[in-house]
Amino acid sequence: MNNVGEQTLVFDVGSTKNPICEAIENHPKRRNFMACHPIAGTEFSGPKSAIKGLYDGKTNIICEVEKTTFKLQKKAMDLFKKLGMRIRYMDSKSHYKHITYVSHLSHISSFMLGKTVIEKEKDEQDIFDMAGSGFESTVRLAKSSPAMWTPIFKQNRKHVIKSLEEYIQNLTNFKDLLENDNFEEVYNEMENTNRIKEILK
Amino acid sequence: MNNVGEQTLVFDVGSTKNPICEAIENHPKRRNFMACHPIAGTEFSGPKSAIKGLYDGKTNIICEVEKTTFKLQKKAMDLFKKLGMRIRYMDSKSHYKHITYVSHLSHISSFMLGKTVIEKEKDEQDIFDMAGSGFESTVRLAKSSPAMWTPIFKQNRKHVIKSLEEYIQNLTNFKDLLENDNFEEVYNEMENTNRIKEILK
Repeated sequence: MNNVGEQTLVFDVGSTKNPICEAIENHPKRRNFMACHPIAGTEFSGPKSAIKGLYDGKTNIICEVEKTTFKLQKKAMDLFKKLGMRIRYMDSKSHYKHITYVSHLSHISSFMLGKTVIEKEKDEQDIFDMAGSGFESTVRLAKSSPAMWTPIFKQNRKHVIKSLEEYIQNLTNFKDLLENDNFEEVYNEMENTNRIKEILK
Repeated sequence: MNNVGEQTLVFDVGSTKNPICEAIENHPKRRNFMACHPIAGTEFSGPKSAIKGLYDGKTNIICEVEKTTFKLQKKAMDLFKKLGMRIRYMDSKSHYKHITYVSHLSHISSFMLGKTVIEKEKDEQDIFDMAGSGFESTVRLAKSSPAMWTPIFKQNRKHVIKSLEEYIQNLTNFKDLLENDNFEEVYNEMENTNRIKEILK
């Protein structure tokens, strides 16, 4: 970063933005840097997992854009526009508040679901034979790379823990409803959450 | 069931098999009945959600097949074969032991993930903009029908509660690892669960 020229744009694409924005806050070349988080990718990693047109139509979250010099903002926008990305501006605190719930928590719920099933099913053929598309979909993120996700959870530790507490609380409440045979509420819990249908069209 | 003829095959396609098998155990026409559970379908319900070739290549679990008269077993196999289904025989107890983990638990983990995110995200546009394919996949089952799933959870209540306890325990352990900054174990937990890649090819 110290050696980049005036016209050089440096941007990252990591899943956490707060730590990098804080680390670089007072850097003399801060205005050459743009903090980005493209919401794109799959559970697979490495060169073999490359996908043509990966960013087309995907959201690119840009944090603290005002701290990047205007000329380099324009350079970045031209690039992202060519890639077909939708731009969303956000401060780095709002970013982790959203992404913790919409991305990081999903990965843990999926990893732990996979763990619970693998622990139970000694015979892997049973899992394969009985896994419908529902299980495959819910457990898909458990195929993700630990090398990528361990640092993400480390950097966003505090907020991931908080989201996990809320998730565990909701699961515990649902379990209590089952234990109390309160199936009217079991029904309502699911019906209320069905709103996700309208949100994720 | 009382009025079916000798040559008539009656089968169900429900997600729980133990209750129906017990209910019909001593029925005079028991040998006309076959307890089936085709592992197929989507999160959508109703006639508009019909899919051509839904059963093609899917697993059909048949419980207590020996209690169905041989002639009608053959009639059923001819039908399922025409539909392109893979047959898996199982007693009704093994069925719920497997399906509780591989299907029912997935639905609850997904519903409660959706609930946790919706509660947090007051602005639904934020969810939509920031939801990657990962979140969409993990929360997909939260679109499922409460009218279909409430009775399933009611009939399989005991085992669903047990699987939920194990799932909540695994999530709590993972949270503890984060709280104790034990990121080596956080890594190992994820790496061990990556085995799901080999199981669900």
